[in-house]
Amino acid sequence: MNAKDARIAIDAMGGDLAPDEVVTGACCAAAQLGFSLILVGDEKRIEPLIAASKASASVRVVHAPEEVAMHEAPAGAVRRGSATSMGRTVELVRDGEADAAFSAGNSGAFLAISTIRLRTLPGIARAAFATAWPARKGPMLLLDSGANVDCKPEWLVQFAIMGCAYARGVLNVAAPKVGLLSVGEEEEKGNALTAAAFPLLRAAPIDFIGNVEGRDLLLGDADVIVCDGFVGNVALKLVEASSEYLFDNVRARSKDNARARIGALLMRPALRKVKAMLDYREYGGAPLLGVRGICLIGHGRADSFAVVSACRAALAAVSHDVLGSIARAFAAQP
Amino acid sequence: MNAKDARIAIDAMGGDLAPDEVVTGACCAAAQLGFSLILVGDEKRIEPLIAASKASASVRVVHAPEEVAMHEAPAGAVRRGSATSMGRTVELVRDGEADAAFSAGNSGAFLAISTIRLRTLPGIARAAFATAWPARKGPMLLLDSGANVDCKPEWLVQFAIMGCAYARGVLNVAAPKVGLLSVGEEEEKGNALTAAAFPLLRAAPIDFIGNVEGRDLLLGDADVIVCDGFVGNVALKLVEASSEYLFDNVRARSKDNARARIGALLMRPALRKVKAMLDYREYGGAPLLGVRGICLIGHGRADSFAVVSACRAALAAVSHDVLGSIARAFAAQP
Repeated sequence: MNAKDARIAIDAMGGDLAPDEVVTGACCAAAQLGFSLILVGDEKRIEPLIAASKASASVRVVHAPEEVAMHEAPAGAVRRGSATSMGRTVELVRDGEADAAFSAGNSGAFLAISTIRLRTLPGIARAAFATAWPARKGPMLLLDSGANVDCKPEWLVQFAIMGCAYARGVLNVAAPKVGLLSVGEEEEKGNALTAAAFPLLRAAPIDFIGNVEGRDLLLGDADVIVCDGFVGNVALKLVEASSEYLFDNVRARSKDNARARIGALLMRPALRKVKAMLDYREYGGAPLLGVRGICLIGHGRADSFAVVSACRAALAAVSHDVLGSIARAFAAQP
Repeated sequence: MNAKDARIAIDAMGGDLAPDEVVTGACCAAAQLGFSLILVGDEKRIEPLIAASKASASVRVVHAPEEVAMHEAPAGAVRRGSATSMGRTVELVRDGEADAAFSAGNSGAFLAISTIRLRTLPGIARAAFATAWPARKGPMLLLDSGANVDCKPEWLVQFAIMGCAYARGVLNVAAPKVGLLSVGEEEEKGNALTAAAFPLLRAAPIDFIGNVEGRDLLLGDADVIVCDGFVGNVALKLVEASSEYLFDNVRARSKDNARARIGALLMRPALRKVKAMLDYREYGGAPLLGVRGICLIGHGRADSFAVVSACRAALAAVSHDVLGSIARAFAAQP
């Protein structure tokens, strides 16, 4: 599908900085990337923001009077259905009015609403969040990064197949290598889950390179790393924090003496570039793979820059028919 | 116990850089810190290295003709008993001839040998590896960092109690706060293991601050963070890699232009200090808490600097009677 034919629905009320940053980012992305934007939420609050953004993009506003709160229980959010901006956003995908949905709101609620409203694709037991970052060898996709805290071995195989489809379509990895996150490279190293998943992954129609370790999330050869959503979420939040931690310390040490102060001043642009590499805003949105629709969740602190990145990922997923690729991969399964 | 009365037994043949770096580091540490050093291994190889180190320390050599290989199966290493340098090192602690044991060799074998030869303290189901690093708020202790990949909820409580004793004795944390590693701060966020462990931790005689997230391993308030050994090992290896990953990128970006090159040159000492913070060599040894003896395992790549750090940790554990503190904490349990 061409970018200009793609329709992306965005929950304008989701996230700590909504609706201001979300609407600004979405309008900017639509103008830059040329897709049709659908903003969902309180029209009285959204419309002035669209006007203020001065974006020349095509924007449709769909009114939804309620919001899902950041710490609201998912079950309650599901019950309120299309009255909420998040529920309505996902329903636009279900009803064929949008090709992709994005929200920077409550991720548990987004998972529940997307799974219940869209259901999973045939052959897929559970949807998984997939998070990408630039590892030493290039883009790396970790899944599940938080949807399923306790997993069955066969789910990890499904995550691997879905992750490969996304890596090919959105991350430009032509022949993705898959690793199983564990505590040692040897097949026998791991826990009960990885021991059971290892032979299933070896038998799956993927390029499985075996067990990988925590270190390989940043420095390894795998393009797609699978694990349960508990380990994946701990790892993701640790990766995000590592950059903040190290640059806080660089800042502190750069005040040690005049030499370090001047060095830090000269290095500032270079250090900023490195810091941005692991900035969640660069990746903007994590796709929920496995449901019958392109759905991306943003970081709760998403600003307009993160929203633009998320729109770019959503558009790539639509343009490269990631959904069709996943569906075909599972249709081909025995 | 005074430092000069402490006897530390070191597996001179364990680790990729053994025996050279291990003997050099151990002799240097003994001279600096004043403990009695026992070096275990092939005496023909050890003695010339002691002579070359020119250390003025008191060194006893205990001969053991065999070595445990880095990737050898633990069961085989256990069977070879005191013929191996690692087995003999642990037996010196069991037999009351040493107050602490250190090896930078095969960690699975060290775990098996220590657990079988020393057994766990009364009331402790499983020993756990504990790894320390300097978080934003000060030293942070993560356990289990790799001994038990599948854990029962009550083991996490035992890890917490042992971790607090070690944090008080060795890391100088007067009143350690304990966090349970999970995927959200709310009590209901987590997997089957954390859900069952949470109420047990709340009822335990510790300062339990609730669930913490991956981010808190570097930026949080907890002094002791407990988790199963699978998640802990992934997190540990990711923390180690994050510093290498970010500084590789800083190095690459510092070649972008003349400004960055000069800045990097001026900042080099400051950047080195930050890089050293998460360098495994700074912490040298991870204690195996729960067995009837002070046992520390080193990183396989441990060099003489890492061995000195490990000796310092071992000496602190002996001097502050960490073993007695743990035993008393469990004796006080109902």
